[in-house]
Amino acid sequence: MPGKFSKLPDAAGNGLMDRRQFLTGLGTAALIAPSMAEARGQPELPASMTSPGSRPEPYGLPAADELARVKRIPITPEQNGGVSLRSLHFTPLDRLRGTYTPAGLHFELSHQGVPKLIADEHTLIIHGMVKRPLKFSIESLERYPIETHSHFLECSGNTTVGWRSPAANLPLAISHGLLSGTQWGGVRLASLLGEAGVEPGAQWIIAEGADAGSVARSLPLAKALDDTLIALYQNGERLRPEQGYPMRLFNPGYEGNSNIKWLRSLKVTREPAMTRFETARYTDLLPSGKALQFSLPMEVKSVITHPCNAHQLVNRGTYEISGLAWSGAGRVRRVEVSADGGRSWADADLEAPVLPKMLTRFRIPWRWHGQPAELASRAYDDIGAVQPPRNELLQRRGKQSFYHYNGIHWWQVSADGIIRQVDV
Amino acid sequence: MPGKFSKLPDAAGNGLMDRRQFLTGLGTAALIAPSMAEARGQPELPASMTSPGSRPEPYGLPAADELARVKRIPITPEQNGGVSLRSLHFTPLDRLRGTYTPAGLHFELSHQGVPKLIADEHTLIIHGMVKRPLKFSIESLERYPIETHSHFLECSGNTTVGWRSPAANLPLAISHGLLSGTQWGGVRLASLLGEAGVEPGAQWIIAEGADAGSVARSLPLAKALDDTLIALYQNGERLRPEQGYPMRLFNPGYEGNSNIKWLRSLKVTREPAMTRFETARYTDLLPSGKALQFSLPMEVKSVITHPCNAHQLVNRGTYEISGLAWSGAGRVRRVEVSADGGRSWADADLEAPVLPKMLTRFRIPWRWHGQPAELASRAYDDIGAVQPPRNELLQRRGKQSFYHYNGIHWWQVSADGIIRQVDV
Repeated sequence: MPGKFSKLPDAAGNGLMDRRQFLTGLGTAALIAPSMAEARGQPELPASMTSPGSRPEPYGLPAADELARVKRIPITPEQNGGVSLRSLHFTPLDRLRGTYTPAGLHFELSHQGVPKLIADEHTLIIHGMVKRPLKFSIESLERYPIETHSHFLECSGNTTVGWRSPAANLPLAISHGLLSGTQWGGVRLASLLGEAGVEPGAQWIIAEGADAGSVARSLPLAKALDDTLIALYQNGERLRPEQGYPMRLFNPGYEGNSNIKWLRSLKVTREPAMTRFETARYTDLLPSGKALQFSLPMEVKSVITHPCNAHQLVNRGTYEISGLAWSGAGRVRRVEVSADGGRSWADADLEAPVLPKMLTRFRIPWRWHGQPAELASRAYDDIGAVQPPRNELLQRRGKQSFYHYNGIHWWQVSADGIIRQVDV
Repeated sequence: MPGKFSKLPDAAGNGLMDRRQFLTGLGTAALIAPSMAEARGQPELPASMTSPGSRPEPYGLPAADELARVKRIPITPEQNGGVSLRSLHFTPLDRLRGTYTPAGLHFELSHQGVPKLIADEHTLIIHGMVKRPLKFSIESLERYPIETHSHFLECSGNTTVGWRSPAANLPLAISHGLLSGTQWGGVRLASLLGEAGVEPGAQWIIAEGADAGSVARSLPLAKALDDTLIALYQNGERLRPEQGYPMRLFNPGYEGNSNIKWLRSLKVTREPAMTRFETARYTDLLPSGKALQFSLPMEVKSVITHPCNAHQLVNRGTYEISGLAWSGAGRVRRVEVSADGGRSWADADLEAPVLPKMLTRFRIPWRWHGQPAELASRAYDDIGAVQPPRNELLQRRGKQSFYHYNGIHWWQVSADGIIRQVDV
């Protein structure tokens, strides 16, 4: 079946096509020959057309077949090397498209499980170095302006295996699935702090959740006065329980753990609290013997989600390479893709709108010749940061880190279309 | 409690404040006095902090308390005046914030119910005036570039009561809830038509669904070659059953019914098919005695969702007025709000990003003096269209229409804070 590729030259080696290429004639794509009757518009009537269908539930769910295929992937403490996490669920990035994650598939990590809170009884207290301590119910927060912003959320332990093993070939959902993107709605923390009156000399805010882990983190006051939200909504509706219902702190671009869930208290202070979650955890040992602490913004990063090691290529021909890029510093400015192990790179198309501190979907067409190929993406953000190769990252940070790995992630496609992670 | 309103002058009559006003000091907002212990940061430990929480399900759901409060509102055929709709569910706009609707709360209308389709067996046939009839499985469509775009979807019968009754005061969710906004992902129909080869003289495409209603609509070929998608995804995941699983037509900005669900066949033709859904239904009788037919794009429209007749104001003081605006023609350019029955109007703030053919959230602060007020919004789009007052719309279109009502919607706030729809 002859293709209709237009005349744009290839954009980079091993089949990477120009991102502006308009694709028709996918050639041997899995097209099915219609029967004579079908081609004449007289296909057989399926059973679904001969008897009425059902009524959906007031709160809808995916199709039963889909629920069996698309779910968060749970890891128990035992599977997690005994690390005491009450629950951990990954987003199945290999089965999702676009940039928004359904709340039901948003990753979650709970140090002591998800508490059951009653929204009408839950309150937030602001105290410490303030002129006037304040207490807010959900109802009183609803009186404030409710802003909505789309942002990614990433656990700083996402892709941690990169520090230890060059190519563990974990399934994409496990290697990268502590990452999701949604629209968050809530009250600007700056409004509440303005109301309370921050005293001179204050520099930090200690946020504490109402869970049994007493998860608490110190947040720089400058961030709290910038874009931090007291989030009540996610994707239009109230937060889900595992996302902090009825309210959480949301610090756009900051590591997941800083966004304290089930938020009950904000204490304005001069110094950080040095809680367990910013000393024993969520710090990284450097080659110098010192540790990175309060490394809150998530670095620029990207990964190819389609195809990945959950997929297999079945025919040579044209495929679309598609993936996600993000940066806690601002907007993704550019994503390059290589199909030849890094010898050449081509610009991928960034789907509009490219939003600050939100997932950006990149796409580029690729002609697979049925030969081995090495695929990867490399993201740039608008403060000039570039996603580093693994070697460069390890040279800078050593091998004792656990968090904030953002190295380039390579997929190798074998001649028979099987895909696995490799080190390039 | 003294407020800290800055010195910006009011933007319009009856308390409308400048949209740039940074709100602190909401005065008598429902603030709760913290206890001495709470103010010192020694609140009592709630039970949630003394025993571990639970593990969430792989596919998460809202909190049980929320599920009881936030649901699509079903209308049975009996409640619908006997009109034969197998099912109809409204989005609860009064309880949602932001611009994205969770798929589980997306409105739905099914003429003969929701068919149960098997994704792996479902196919789409393109036939009629094409050089080469084609048949696509889901798997083969996944080989094409998958684009994602955020768009509203609105039933053309949304707010139909406006044609008949000036101020029926239906709950907001019933008057306006056949409206939702999500991110749609799929294959550009133009790619598939390019593959099939459209013959000269073709002007229309007849789309047919695999449901028992055999819902079919004629779509102008020009639209099909522009931004129409064969949608497989909604908000990142596969379509929900009531949204057309496993595939639907999606025509950005066009009336809901044209976006054929459970899509099975596209026939390229010279003339429209004049199906039941574009003759007996989805047409509007004009004063001239002729009928509007194929009035596909949805007109510019807006409504205040907060506060609305599902809410009650409890204290005088500052509130945020917030609502949704949209246009099937493109971007919302401007939204004005009045608090004095239309004597004066002020510009509301439009939350970024303002996307074409997508819901836009507008917001403006308002000081309620405890006196009666009439609130409304008026939207403008980027082709220069303005949302009309009801009188003007009826003068132009008469009173025999059922679809495409987009008049300005007024809420009256009584001195005791009760809100109902009125005619102004």
